[in-house]
Amino acid sequence: MNDTRVSEYILRRRVNFYEADQAGIVHFSNYYRYMEEAEYGLWRSAGVSLEPTGEYAFPRVAASFEFHAPLRFDDEFSVRLRIAHIGRSSLRYACHITRGDTPIATGAMTLVCVSAGDMRPVPLPPDRLARVAVSAR
Amino acid sequence: MNDTRVSEYILRRRVNFYEADQAGIVHFSNYYRYMEEAEYGLWRSAGVSLEPTGEYAFPRVAASFEFHAPLRFDDEFSVRLRIAHIGRSSLRYACHITRGDTPIATGAMTLVCVSAGDMRPVPLPPDRLARVAVSAR
Amino acid sequence: MNDTRVSEYILRRRVNFYEADQAGIVHFSNYYRYMEEAEYGLWRSAGVSLEPTGEYAFPRVAASFEFHAPLRFDDEFSVRLRIAHIGRSSLRYACHITRGDTPIATGAMTLVCVSAGDMRPVPLPPDRLARVAVSAR
Amino acid sequence: MNDTRVSEYILRRRVNFYEADQAGIVHFSNYYRYMEEAEYGLWRSAGVSLEPTGEYAFPRVAASFEFHAPLRFDDEFSVRLRIAHIGRSSLRYACHITRGDTPIATGAMTLVCVSAGDMRPVPLPPDRLARVAVSAR
Repeated sequence: MNDTRVSEYILRRRVNFYEADQAGIVHFSNYYRYMEEAEYGLWRSAGVSLEPTGEYAFPRVAASFEFHAPLRFDDEFSVRLRIAHIGRSSLRYACHITRGDTPIATGAMTLVCVSAGDMRPVPLPPDRLARVAVSAR
Repeated sequence: MNDTRVSEYILRRRVNFYEADQAGIVHFSNYYRYMEEAEYGLWRSAGVSLEPTGEYAFPRVAASFEFHAPLRFDDEFSVRLRIAHIGRSSLRYACHITRGDTPIATGAMTLVCVSAGDMRPVPLPPDRLARVAVSAR
Repeated sequence: MNDTRVSEYILRRRVNFYEADQAGIVHFSNYYRYMEEAEYGLWRSAGVSLEPTGEYAFPRVAASFEFHAPLRFDDEFSVRLRIAHIGRSSLRYACHITRGDTPIATGAMTLVCVSAGDMRPVPLPPDRLARVAVSAR
Repeated sequence: MNDTRVSEYILRRRVNFYEADQAGIVHFSNYYRYMEEAEYGLWRSAGVSLEPTGEYAFPRVAASFEFHAPLRFDDEFSVRLRIAHIGRSSLRYACHITRGDTPIATGAMTLVCVSAGDMRPVPLPPDRLARVAVSAR
C-alpha cells in the first residue's frame, strides 16, 4: 500500500458460455455485472472494500449502458472503470468496455453510502475516500 | 387475438432467493432481467414474439435504471412496462417497478431491429408493428 | 394456517429469455435455481421460512440433476418437489421437472441446518419440523 | 498445439460479489457455472471447442455437487476438472473445488454428443476425441 490514490481500474476478462444468450451474444444484464467486477477490482487495488458491513452499505442509485457492438462466447474484452465524480455521500463511475479497438459498451453507475440500519444516506467513509480520487481524464 | 394494439404490460413477480445479494437486497443487475421479463410478456400478450430468428434479432442499444428503494427476498412487486417511442428501426420502453405503493426503480430500454446476418439496423418488421402502439400515458 | 403438514409443492413456471443459452436451451445451472424456487414455495406454503437468520442457516450439502430433455425459451413447465427424507439436522428433497407429459429433469437436493455463527450442524428447528413431513409417494 | 492430449485443467478464480447470496456464501447454482468455466478452459487448452455448432451440440445429461465448505465474496479458489470417462457418445468429468488446502466441493458432470438437428446421441467427433484423454489419476 502506498499513497497513490486510485482513480481507474481495468478488468481483463473472457466471456463465459453461460453469459451468452440464445442470440449468441452476451445478455445485456451481464454488462452490469462486468461493471461491478471492475468496481470491486478498483477498490481492491485501493486496499479498501465496498463490501457491505454492519455499519455501511453502498447500494447503487443509478446504472446505465449504451451498447455499441455485441460480445460473443470466448471473446476477450476489457472493462475500464474510472471514478467520474465524488460527492458527499455518492460516487459516480464511467465505464468503457472494449474488445481490442472495438467499442462494445459505454456505461455509468452511481452508488450512495447509506447507514446499514436505516438505509439513509451518510457521508462516504473517510478511510475509503482517502484511497481514491476522481480520474483526471 | 383481436385488433387492440398493446402498449403496456404489467408483470407481477416475487423476488427469488438467488436474486438477493449478500446485502440482503436484489442485486441491481436483476432489475434489467425483470424489465426483460415484462418485455417478453408485452409481446406475448400482443400475439407476436421478439425472439431472435434467422432473419431478425433485436439487440438492446441502451438500458438504464434509477433505484429508489430496495427489494428483498420474497417481496411481491410489479413491473409496469410501457412503449414510450417507436422509431423506424428502434423502439423504446419506459419501466416502473413498484412494491405496493412504494416506488422501487424507474428504467428505460431501447432495442433496435437488425438483420440477423450482418447485425445492421433494418425497419421493424410490419407484423410486430401492427400489434403494438405507443402508450398514451 | 392449519394442521396439515406439507410434504410436496408444485411450481408452475415459464422459461425466461435470459435463462436459455446459445444452444437455445435452458442453461443447466438454472435447473438448480428452479429447484430452489420450488423449495421456497414449499416452505412458504407450510407457513415457515428457510431464509437464513442470525441463528440458523440452511446450506446445501448436495444437489444433483439428470437431464432428460431440454427446455426452451417460453416453455411452460412444472417443478414438483417432494420431501424425501428428514434426518436429525438434514433434509432431502426429490425433484421432477416436466413439460406437460414430457420428463425434463430429475433432481435431488440435501440441506443441513447449521448454527449461523460457526456453521456447525445442529438439529432442524422444531417450528420448521412441525410444519412438514416426508412425502408418502 | 502439440501431440499431448489434455486430460485435466485447473481454473483459478475469485468469487464475484454477485455470486454470493444473502447468507454471505456463494449460491450453490454458481458451482455448476464454475465447473463449466473449467470445462471450456480444458477444451480451449486442447485447441478445440465444445461450442454448439450447426452439426453438433453437447448437452449435459447429469451434473452433481457435494458441498463441503462455503466460498465467500472475494475468496480465491481453484476448480480442478479431470476427464474421468470417455464413452462412445458421452464424456464424464470429475471436479474438485478448493480454497487453498480446504476442500470446498466435489462434483461430476456428464455430457452427451447429439446431432444439432434431432438431438439424438451420436459418436463424439473424432477431432475432439483426438485432443483429449481420460485422466490417469
